[in-house]
Amino acid sequence: MGTPFELTILGSSSATPTSKRFPTAQLLNVAERFFLIDCGEGTQIQLRRNHIRFQRINHIFISHLHGDHYLGLMGLLSSLHLLGRKNPLHIYHPPGLKMIIDIQLEFSGTVLNYPIHWHEHRIDKQEIIYEDDWLKVQTILLNHRIPCCGFLFREKPRPFSIDKEKVLIHQVPVSQMNALKNGEDAVADDGTVIPNEAVTRGRAISRSYAFCSDTRYDERVIAQVKGVDLLYHEATFMHNLLERAKVTHHTTALEAGRVARLAGVKQLLIGHFSVRYRELDELLNEARQEFAQTALAEEGITFQIPEQWIVQKTI
Amino acid sequence: MGTPFELTILGSSSATPTSKRFPTAQLLNVAERFFLIDCGEGTQIQLRRNHIRFQRINHIFISHLHGDHYLGLMGLLSSLHLLGRKNPLHIYHPPGLKMIIDIQLEFSGTVLNYPIHWHEHRIDKQEIIYEDDWLKVQTILLNHRIPCCGFLFREKPRPFSIDKEKVLIHQVPVSQMNALKNGEDAVADDGTVIPNEAVTRGRAISRSYAFCSDTRYDERVIAQVKGVDLLYHEATFMHNLLERAKVTHHTTALEAGRVARLAGVKQLLIGHFSVRYRELDELLNEARQEFAQTALAEEGITFQIPEQWIVQKTI
Repeated sequence: MGTPFELTILGSSSATPTSKRFPTAQLLNVAERFFLIDCGEGTQIQLRRNHIRFQRINHIFISHLHGDHYLGLMGLLSSLHLLGRKNPLHIYHPPGLKMIIDIQLEFSGTVLNYPIHWHEHRIDKQEIIYEDDWLKVQTILLNHRIPCCGFLFREKPRPFSIDKEKVLIHQVPVSQMNALKNGEDAVADDGTVIPNEAVTRGRAISRSYAFCSDTRYDERVIAQVKGVDLLYHEATFMHNLLERAKVTHHTTALEAGRVARLAGVKQLLIGHFSVRYRELDELLNEARQEFAQTALAEEGITFQIPEQWIVQKTI
Repeated sequence: MGTPFELTILGSSSATPTSKRFPTAQLLNVAERFFLIDCGEGTQIQLRRNHIRFQRINHIFISHLHGDHYLGLMGLLSSLHLLGRKNPLHIYHPPGLKMIIDIQLEFSGTVLNYPIHWHEHRIDKQEIIYEDDWLKVQTILLNHRIPCCGFLFREKPRPFSIDKEKVLIHQVPVSQMNALKNGEDAVADDGTVIPNEAVTRGRAISRSYAFCSDTRYDERVIAQVKGVDLLYHEATFMHNLLERAKVTHHTTALEAGRVARLAGVKQLLIGHFSVRYRELDELLNEARQEFAQTALAEEGITFQIPEQWIVQKTI
């Protein structure tokens, strides 16, 4: 499989939970960085059930302040504290969340043993809110009843992987290694050009995941998620409840499929299902009318994007 | 069984939930009045799993503002709203809770469709916080790290049940019915005294339940729960962790049994178990060393206090 890029679904329900479905929460593992995306009530229970070690999570992204997307946060922060966390935790959030947490810490008489770094994101324009040597996270502007944004996780271009044996055979100078990693050809000491593909195994294609939590169908979203490997898009209702979807600022399964098709993504996951749907196959089938590569974002399922290697030089 | 007086356990875990145990929440049904006692994270999920209709709950009692006792409240209030509630809801709570809920309603852009009546309870003295024609609820002062109180539910003295056939036979005047209901003898029109027990079936004994959430072992608690039918007392640790219990303001299973014995209660339930105990039998056995009539307050279990009838007149 190579370096992991995998998404585990912890909750798939909209507004009110059911006896089987939890509200929205997902865990994304990109190269052993663990990102928690939304944190509905019961997320810590779902983390335990999925055998995910709480303390590996260093970054939490909250899309908006409807309860089904953040009410599990206070309990999780408290458990991290009780379980002895010392490492900093980063929380990316819309305005208001820090105040909500602070007041609860105050009344519970709790001083956390670890620092929280609060990163309040803008609600009026896209921005990069996280970046390290491996990936970037950018907000996605959505269209909901209250300020709400999605998140686009994208790996940075990966270096070309040098084949040590071939490098020896071709006598590539050490000074040329960075050029090779960048996808350029190497130049030997005698001036001979050694083609990149002769001494590297190529590179892994950078992968991407777009999380679109609560939103109306909105064409502006399509441009922002163009061509991603995996798109999660809410699909609260069937299309026969389109008017209800519009009023509540949600999307139908058919519309979610349309977003995926028009954005040319590779795979679509739908979730945030209304409690009225006991069986989810009808939602799935409806989305597939627009976009065949659709799956249900159900609790406990992990979706993997395997590494794919190419030898071409251009990114 | 007669009129119900029954307690359903929705959560038994302390501070952090496990994959099987939820934080504290209980539902008490007294004569078809449904009282929710504490409301840890995931309470609405547990209500669904136990097939309890949310809208039957009109009164919620919160013992204190540690997250494992109230973090499920915001989600429940929101679900009641989304499910169309119109009826008023009463919340009995320590200082601070209203502010915590209000700020979350504000940021989620929610105006509830039903009114909440907030009843802030005193933390320095016992008081009656609820009363109707059937029962009273009084606070129990506990000893915890932050302001915390328990709740004592006690039925009012029940009226004597009139035997209509015997009343006809003895020709009891209608004007004497209230006297009979109050346990007094009746007087016939000719001055003859008709003993109460000759024309009534006696009355049901009033029942009582005491809920003692988080507290250190404290003898002042014993006086407040004297002789109740059912006592719930936290038992976070085994007695070999007594020092840990003291530091964290909790009780050991042995101490919980001692409270029950010294208070002369009829039955004890222990709960609020530390996550370190996977099997709970050792806690149960330890409490039983002090008090044999002990049971575990485990998720999904309902404890009933059947009606008992007596014919004696004095209360």
